[in-house]
Formats: sequence, structure tokens, C-alpha cells
Amino acid sequence: MDAFMQAAIEEARQGLVEGGIPIGSVIVHKGRIIGRGHNRRVQEGSAIKHGEMDAFENAGRQSASVYREAVLYTTLSPCSMCSGAILLYGIPKVVIGENRTFLGEEELLRSRGVQLEVLQDAECVQLMEDFIKAKPELWNEDIGE
Amino acid sequence: MDAFMQAAIEEARQGLVEGGIPIGSVIVHKGRIIGRGHNRRVQEGSAIKHGEMDAFENAGRQSASVYREAVLYTTLSPCSMCSGAILLYGIPKVVIGENRTFLGEEELLRSRGVQLEVLQDAECVQLMEDFIKAKPELWNEDIGE
Repeated sequence: MDAFMQAAIEEARQGLVEGGIPIGSVIVHKGRIIGRGHNRRVQEGSAIKHGEMDAFENAGRQSASVYREAVLYTTLSPCSMCSGAILLYGIPKVVIGENRTFLGEEELLRSRGVQLEVLQDAECVQLMEDFIKAKPELWNEDIGE
Repeated sequence: MDAFMQAAIEEARQGLVEGGIPIGSVIVHKGRIIGRGHNRRVQEGSAIKHGEMDAFENAGRQSASVYREAVLYTTLSPCSMCSGAILLYGIPKVVIGENRTFLGEEELLRSRGVQLEVLQDAECVQLMEDFIKAKPELWNEDIGE
């Protein structure tokens, strides 16, 4: 298992421990994690802090040159909002834990030249399957349904 | 001038007073503002709080049924990230102050069925023209350039 995806999964697990939705993300630049985060809808009553957004926020203000050499790791296929952030900052590559429980805007990202790698990682799938089964209403809220 | 766009402009002006980027937004549901915000890149060192995102966050956790009847007002054409949030939550209508100084993802939004109204408001244009002239590096950072 890729160490960076492992870090994203650790973020997801931390979110679960906090009573939140288990989705985590890290942003990597030149082999170093510059931002990490997890979904904070429950913990902060946040409508915008998906895992990826939390990682962007945690990375802080970066120059365009940093984003353009960065790789974003996320345990789940990125939704419209997070995909939009990826496009805004010109992140060239996204590694996705799984897209079986939710398929985000992968087609849009690819059409804009973002390189995607989907791992279909069993641990990522299990985290989401268990959560969706346990708290379907929270999950639906998180994806605007 | 539409009272809700006026409220968005007030948010933009508040951001400017704080030393920030003058872009504001309000989210309206059934004729009432349920969330308002402005760009907080400078004020909070935030990479994700564009005006629209700040308004979503300020509105808090809302049910899908509320978002689907809401109108988002923003002083500037929404970027990829903010457009993604609009799509995530299924906001059906967006009123845009201007798209002359920056053209966001209007084509994508329209292709997904979002109704757009562009006012080309002189005050919105002036706010951005003055700001971009005064602090071009901040503006470029905000749009990932």
C-alpha cells in the first residue's frame, strides 16, 4: 500500500473516531505531505469541509507552482466541489482510493487533463460501505441528496 | 438594484475593508438570506473560502430540499471550486454580478441545467478592476495562477 494513501486512510479513520464521515485526503508535493485532512461535516457542522477541501485548507496558501507539481490522494472519488478545487488549483494528478461506493466527477477531471489513478482499495471500500449502512442520512446530506 | 445582489456587494465591500479580496455572496431561500460570506483568503489564510464557499459555510448544514430551492448571488462569475459546490448541492439558479474581469465555469453550470443571470453590474466590475490593478499577485493566487 502506497504510504500516502495510507496517510489518507488514517485521516479517514480519525474522522470516524470523531463521529464523522470516514473520508480522508492528503496533498503531496515533492514526496512530502503539505496538507492533510478529513471530512468535518459532523465535527464542525461544515458544509464545505470534505476531506479534500480540508486538506487544501490545511496546506494553506500555496503558490500556483506548488499546486502544479502536487498529487492529491483521497480515499473516495472526488465530488463536484472537490473536483472543482482540484481544477482551480491545477492539481495534475489525483490518486483515488475507490469509486465503487460513490463515483465523483472523474470524467470531468479527465476531460481537463487531470491524471487519475483508481486503486479500488478494499479498506477504503469497507470504510464507506460500513458508514453508508450505519448512517445513510448523513451520507446523503454530504453528497447533496 | 436587486436587494440580494446589494447584500452580496456589501459582503464584497466588507472584505475589502478587512484587507481582503472584494468578492461577496449570499444564498437566498424563499426570499430570505440563509447564508452570506466573502472571500477570506487574506483574513484567514484560507485556500478554500471564496465568497461563495464562505456563504455555503455560513448557511451551515442544510437539507437537499433547501438547496434545491435556493438562489446563489455572487458578485463575480464563480470559479471551478465554487461552481462545483453549486453542482454538489444542486443550486438551481445563480445570479452573477459580473463576468468581465473573470469568466468562471458558466458553460459547465449551464450544461448541467443551472440557470444563470449575469447582471454586468458596474459596481461589481469596478470593485474587481480596482483590486486587480492594486494587488495583481493576490488575485492571481486566488484563481490558481
